[in-house]
Amino acid sequence: MTSELLLPALNAARKGMAEGGIPIGSALYVEGAIVATGRNRRQQLGSVIRHAELDCLEQAGRLPAGSYRQATLVTTLSPCDMCAGAILLYGIPRVVIGENRNFTGAEDLLRSRGVQLEVLDDEACALLMEEFMTEYPSLWNEDIGLL
Amino acid sequence: MTSELLLPALNAARKGMAEGGIPIGSALYVEGAIVATGRNRRQQLGSVIRHAELDCLEQAGRLPAGSYRQATLVTTLSPCDMCAGAILLYGIPRVVIGENRNFTGAEDLLRSRGVQLEVLDDEACALLMEEFMTEYPSLWNEDIGLL
Repeated sequence: MTSELLLPALNAARKGMAEGGIPIGSALYVEGAIVATGRNRRQQLGSVIRHAELDCLEQAGRLPAGSYRQATLVTTLSPCDMCAGAILLYGIPRVVIGENRNFTGAEDLLRSRGVQLEVLDDEACALLMEEFMTEYPSLWNEDIGLL
Repeated sequence: MTSELLLPALNAARKGMAEGGIPIGSALYVEGAIVATGRNRRQQLGSVIRHAELDCLEQAGRLPAGSYRQATLVTTLSPCDMCAGAILLYGIPRVVIGENRNFTGAEDLLRSRGVQLEVLDDEACALLMEEFMTEYPSLWNEDIGLL
């Protein structure tokens, strides 16, 4: 069963899917309280930077550095290089990843810089992503810079 | 004298400064032709992800992977971890940096992944940034996740 911590990100991913978007969702917690959610909005906004994690940070708005340092970023899928870079820029110390079966992003880079990663291997996240990747391979490959 | 390649990015930085923003600018070239410019818009849009390079990629819109692979990203200031991550995500092979005196970003990471970097040490870029950092240290520190 999907953990309570992951649920808002998974719901954001599902919302994205319902909008015709790429079903990846994210949530930002500061000191245990949820501050924002985000979802990949490449399709919805024609955006090349609104990956779920960046959309979530943007929704959260301008936070003091001290908040980022107390934050956990949750994402349904392993973060790509760009999103990992944002995590490093803002010094977010902990990242919870729904699954990395369908895509393994910059986990080594994050670990090498001291970010604590937790991979939940959540079945619902994995199935949602797998279904999408099978149905829309071009869109998925565009999103990770391969097409 | 500022090189012709760098000038659109420098002009974007100056535009940002005139708007009350952080004076960092960027330009994307594909096969030698300019496709878009961007500028840091933290102040203008209340954005935590619109660094100059990301703003530029967003302005350029959804490009095929083959375009990114033929691209040069120009930026007035050494790119941070987030912007470096975007460069890696999209496989941009060449980055031209106006200056890295005032801030040296993720240059080692980019080099280690095969990105060709060229640092111009441009006087106009350096002076613009130095002036801004001296006048608005809090805003600058917020932009790099330190405040």
